[in-house]
Amino acid sequence: MTEINGYIQSDREEKIDVLNLASLEKRAEEIIPTGGFGYISGGSEDNWTLKENTEAFNHVQIVPRVLSDIDDPQTKTSILGINLETPIMMSPAAAQGLAHSQGEKDTAKGMAKAGALMGQSTYSSTSIADTAAAGNGSPQFFQLYMSKDWDFNKELLNEAKKAGAKAILLTADATVDGYRESDVINDFQFPIPMANLTKFSEGDGKGKGIGEIYAAAAQKIRPDDIQRIKDISGLPVIVKGIQSPEDALLAIGGGTDGIYVSNHGGRQLNGGPASFDVLADVAKAVNHKVPIIFDSGVRRGSHVFKALASGADIVALARPMIYGLALGGADGVYSVVEHLNDELKTIMQLAGTKTIDDVKHAKLLHK
Amino acid sequence: MTEINGYIQSDREEKIDVLNLASLEKRAEEIIPTGGFGYISGGSEDNWTLKENTEAFNHVQIVPRVLSDIDDPQTKTSILGINLETPIMMSPAAAQGLAHSQGEKDTAKGMAKAGALMGQSTYSSTSIADTAAAGNGSPQFFQLYMSKDWDFNKELLNEAKKAGAKAILLTADATVDGYRESDVINDFQFPIPMANLTKFSEGDGKGKGIGEIYAAAAQKIRPDDIQRIKDISGLPVIVKGIQSPEDALLAIGGGTDGIYVSNHGGRQLNGGPASFDVLADVAKAVNHKVPIIFDSGVRRGSHVFKALASGADIVALARPMIYGLALGGADGVYSVVEHLNDELKTIMQLAGTKTIDDVKHAKLLHK
Amino acid sequence: MTEINGYIQSDREEKIDVLNLASLEKRAEEIIPTGGFGYISGGSEDNWTLKENTEAFNHVQIVPRVLSDIDDPQTKTSILGINLETPIMMSPAAAQGLAHSQGEKDTAKGMAKAGALMGQSTYSSTSIADTAAAGNGSPQFFQLYMSKDWDFNKELLNEAKKAGAKAILLTADATVDGYRESDVINDFQFPIPMANLTKFSEGDGKGKGIGEIYAAAAQKIRPDDIQRIKDISGLPVIVKGIQSPEDALLAIGGGTDGIYVSNHGGRQLNGGPASFDVLADVAKAVNHKVPIIFDSGVRRGSHVFKALASGADIVALARPMIYGLALGGADGVYSVVEHLNDELKTIMQLAGTKTIDDVKHAKLLHK
Amino acid sequence: MTEINGYIQSDREEKIDVLNLASLEKRAEEIIPTGGFGYISGGSEDNWTLKENTEAFNHVQIVPRVLSDIDDPQTKTSILGINLETPIMMSPAAAQGLAHSQGEKDTAKGMAKAGALMGQSTYSSTSIADTAAAGNGSPQFFQLYMSKDWDFNKELLNEAKKAGAKAILLTADATVDGYRESDVINDFQFPIPMANLTKFSEGDGKGKGIGEIYAAAAQKIRPDDIQRIKDISGLPVIVKGIQSPEDALLAIGGGTDGIYVSNHGGRQLNGGPASFDVLADVAKAVNHKVPIIFDSGVRRGSHVFKALASGADIVALARPMIYGLALGGADGVYSVVEHLNDELKTIMQLAGTKTIDDVKHAKLLHK
Repeated sequence: MTEINGYIQSDREEKIDVLNLASLEKRAEEIIPTGGFGYISGGSEDNWTLKENTEAFNHVQIVPRVLSDIDDPQTKTSILGINLETPIMMSPAAAQGLAHSQGEKDTAKGMAKAGALMGQSTYSSTSIADTAAAGNGSPQFFQLYMSKDWDFNKELLNEAKKAGAKAILLTADATVDGYRESDVINDFQFPIPMANLTKFSEGDGKGKGIGEIYAAAAQKIRPDDIQRIKDISGLPVIVKGIQSPEDALLAIGGGTDGIYVSNHGGRQLNGGPASFDVLADVAKAVNHKVPIIFDSGVRRGSHVFKALASGADIVALARPMIYGLALGGADGVYSVVEHLNDELKTIMQLAGTKTIDDVKHAKLLHK
Repeated sequence: MTEINGYIQSDREEKIDVLNLASLEKRAEEIIPTGGFGYISGGSEDNWTLKENTEAFNHVQIVPRVLSDIDDPQTKTSILGINLETPIMMSPAAAQGLAHSQGEKDTAKGMAKAGALMGQSTYSSTSIADTAAAGNGSPQFFQLYMSKDWDFNKELLNEAKKAGAKAILLTADATVDGYRESDVINDFQFPIPMANLTKFSEGDGKGKGIGEIYAAAAQKIRPDDIQRIKDISGLPVIVKGIQSPEDALLAIGGGTDGIYVSNHGGRQLNGGPASFDVLADVAKAVNHKVPIIFDSGVRRGSHVFKALASGADIVALARPMIYGLALGGADGVYSVVEHLNDELKTIMQLAGTKTIDDVKHAKLLHK
Repeated sequence: MTEINGYIQSDREEKIDVLNLASLEKRAEEIIPTGGFGYISGGSEDNWTLKENTEAFNHVQIVPRVLSDIDDPQTKTSILGINLETPIMMSPAAAQGLAHSQGEKDTAKGMAKAGALMGQSTYSSTSIADTAAAGNGSPQFFQLYMSKDWDFNKELLNEAKKAGAKAILLTADATVDGYRESDVINDFQFPIPMANLTKFSEGDGKGKGIGEIYAAAAQKIRPDDIQRIKDISGLPVIVKGIQSPEDALLAIGGGTDGIYVSNHGGRQLNGGPASFDVLADVAKAVNHKVPIIFDSGVRRGSHVFKALASGADIVALARPMIYGLALGGADGVYSVVEHLNDELKTIMQLAGTKTIDDVKHAKLLHK
Repeated sequence: MTEINGYIQSDREEKIDVLNLASLEKRAEEIIPTGGFGYISGGSEDNWTLKENTEAFNHVQIVPRVLSDIDDPQTKTSILGINLETPIMMSPAAAQGLAHSQGEKDTAKGMAKAGALMGQSTYSSTSIADTAAAGNGSPQFFQLYMSKDWDFNKELLNEAKKAGAKAILLTADATVDGYRESDVINDFQFPIPMANLTKFSEGDGKGKGIGEIYAAAAQKIRPDDIQRIKDISGLPVIVKGIQSPEDALLAIGGGTDGIYVSNHGGRQLNGGPASFDVLADVAKAVNHKVPIIFDSGVRRGSHVFKALASGADIVALARPMIYGLALGGADGVYSVVEHLNDELKTIMQLAGTKTIDDVKHAKLLHK
């Protein structure tokens, strides 16, 4: 264990047994301090949308297909020309130092080992360069909380490009923080600094709550911000936090290179729909013009399958990987992805789908 | 604490921490005597409609909107030409002396501090004039339980007008009391007098149950009573307790100046629909001819948003404010309204709505 | 307490407090012996249909109506020209001696006091004549479990007519007994004789289970049995146990004088629909050609209202009255009916319905 | 009790009391060792599909019919020209030695006593010939896990034919094992050999998990495998594990002699629909061209009825019979089938259906 400002961080480095992703939360709760665990696990208000995110996958069913003449299903796929071993991606979650002393560096290592796409957050505990280096050339996207301070934005984007980020995830659903009651109950402020804030801006986030940190960011995001960030970074930009066909079309109109369907893991607008419940409608509007990343609520291989079959190209999640990080560092993260990908492969075989492209064309039922 | 006729009243005066409105009930139960708490918190029969009132808000979802180019959402609004800081209103609940020694006077103060509309009940613990004075010029509506005794009605209406009430809320859904089992279990009679009854009628309500008190009122209310009360009072009249398009049209035909959609907080017809579930249909029938006030079941900023987006102009509630009153007097009431308004502002920002008018035009989903 | 064959019978005679009908079950369980209580309270198999019977009333909602210009609602009604103070009826339940030493005699007294219709069962603990005498001229219907032995049927029907029965309820849904697990668990046989069996047939039911007793009855019932029983009795015949438009039409074709929609309180075909869920469809097929009696699951005044508004003319129930019988004899039964009728009157007032005929024309919602 | 490789097997031989099939699981859990019980009772992942399998029967209701002029309902039926006393069949479940020392031999005896069809599994604890002999001429089907090794397949099929099997059930839904968490939790490997593997292949399954055993089987099954197996065996072939109209049509195109609708008791693709929920759609596609066997989730006579009324000709189940086997050997199995058939007969009478053919034409409701 490592102590920093009185906060105890795990420093385990080992593969972990994963019975299933849902069961990791309880195990992680035992080793992540209360405030940090509340920040990671909690949603907004009474967690209605958070719970609905996972429950919604039961609104559709996968059709078992049995005379399909297939075996050995393959999870290889790609996005924006980047080849990946799996459609499973790490959502760009903040402050992973809350779970482990190596923070995002270990997450990046674990994702790299799995051949899976890593998302870096603006509010990472480790710096863009360090996290990129830990990934050792494996693909990473950088998530931007667009600041009111464009010098700050430029520096971050340059740093991300320099570190080899393949795309920018522009978070648009956090112009204010959702009302997260667990943070209020725990009177939670970040006990550890955020490396990018330390480096590029005045404060480093330490001793602040998520609300204060968001307050430093822009509260207004417009479609033409997409092109501005593309111009600055020279990288593809994917708008994150889309939950409606209308916003998907606005983003496409603004030149987005991808749509990231997410409700921020139920941490923002409680009382909004489950992210999965809007995916098909958004995908219909996007109509294959740009690729779609999906997150919020994914815990099972069958969830990954259902999201792909509903229009997603890449399926992201964060909490279970962070729990794996706390329980086993880089190898813990890898164990989680490996387990989830194994579940996915089993489902693919049983659904008669050999490739991710087959999955995308699979039929779902609404029984 | 204050004791009156053996009944213990809170006399706290302080701001309170509000995690969320639902959590106040348990805290209030600890300081309000059993009989009073049962009267305040209970609904009729097995509380099916009461529970459904709040559950029904989950029947629709708010669409998060993220490329909306807005910040700093504003909750200012108006009704009948009266400017308000927020669409949140105090429902005209009876007998608030059950919760606090200052009763409606403190509620009025708290609502005034929030720039919010106060509803006074005929069955208030404090007099029309005293409650009005406590509001210090902030807008108030006076609710009338129309009596068989028109002299009584006239005196009350004159008093209300004299005290500066801006409109009369004519309660039409209580021609008999709902079957409230908690009152039966507690053998509850009002331990403290009702100021308006003391002043204008023979009995003062003390030592009676709500059934006996209602029995003194008229059991028949007709559309032409609206005009009669308008004529007597010279004030706008809003019919309270509407749950159907048919009654809304009857009230408009009778000259009503507003429709108050409510099922009396689930205290009257158990087995009727959730109030929110009928709002959109009533609003469609009303078709913007008169403004709509809505109550019953509201506990969250998202509920306020959903009601506004379903046709309401003002969204009222009572129990949570009464719990705030018990816990902190005027400042407790203010704390509740402030918290709820903050939740509303967060939801407004995340839904891409800058003004209350934007909210009224927001799209809801039925997933 | 009275003991008969080792079975302890209540002999209480007093009015009882009724908070609500559902709460009586627990109180009755404390004084009715286990086997008898299991027989009375249980349904078939896992009680799915039994529970659904009551739950189904939540599938529709009553519209509160508030500008209706009514007061003092009246529950007087009639069926087959028989005037009644209330549409609430006693279903013809068997073996009420299990609950009270006076059995059906006290039930009949209690129903008579309420001006309500009494249903006598073939398998009553007390004789047709004794039960009729206890009712003291108040209207009663006699329920027939049609036997293979037509001499037995004739004697019973003659006895019923002689005792003043106004109609025959021909039970058609019990050609075999449902699989009632509580009777199996308790290894239940009737500890007390059935008066009509004692009088007219060889065995008296004592020491037998319901299965053996049903086995003595006919397993085949045809539409032309209706006319046969009408001819023998000279009385109107109402077929009991109808759950489908098809059987309603067959019964009408066979000359029935009424349709009794019931699933035997969930004691026969488990896995069938809630009785309330089929009522409206059956009523549509009946199309006012004959009156409709409804039972199964009724526990609230709002349930009575919903059944009437869905096509019923009379609404019956049995278990709550039997619990009232155990707890207070004739006055206990009366207390139950009085309470339920009071709930109904409250609902009628709040729904703006002055008469039972108004209730029958009230609109229900499906929210 | 018998011990084999440290595993304790029941060797009870007696009729058992069956309150209902669901209640057997708890009783069996007390005598079957943990690993074996987990293997038998568990489904895949979080058991969503397993639970939904039984819950789905509540999605439809049976219409009680009461003027049907029937008694003494008959459960005799036939499939592929084979006469049976009941439509209830034993699903071909693996490794019944986990429950009883006599394994499938006792199951076959019990099914034969009931005049019911026995399904033998490739992975039986007892040999094809021994199980067939125990059935003493009563009809049996042999289930094939088609191996990559066609010599193995041929030997098995020849052995089955020689033993008098009437048809081959070709399992197509297990080209990989579902993710069964109870086996992972218990670190379960088969403690006892599988007779057919012992005889025909290298390993005997002992000391392996189901995953390793499945891995030896083919992962690719094509429609033309049906004809190949028909040619080798000279027996009718029924494809087991169909859940979609598409696969049913493929199987019919491939020459199948029957369709076996099953999701393997919720042990394979979790997140797929309840088997009952797809039955009617599959039956519509099959359109009576070949007979349909149905399993997964059946626990009640009403479930058998609903499956027959939705298109099944034969209704199979396994877990409850295996529990009966553990609790009472052959007589235990017989007790289970007898009880379930009695429940079915009660439902048939109450639904006005005299024959299995009548049941197939009965109307179901969706309330």
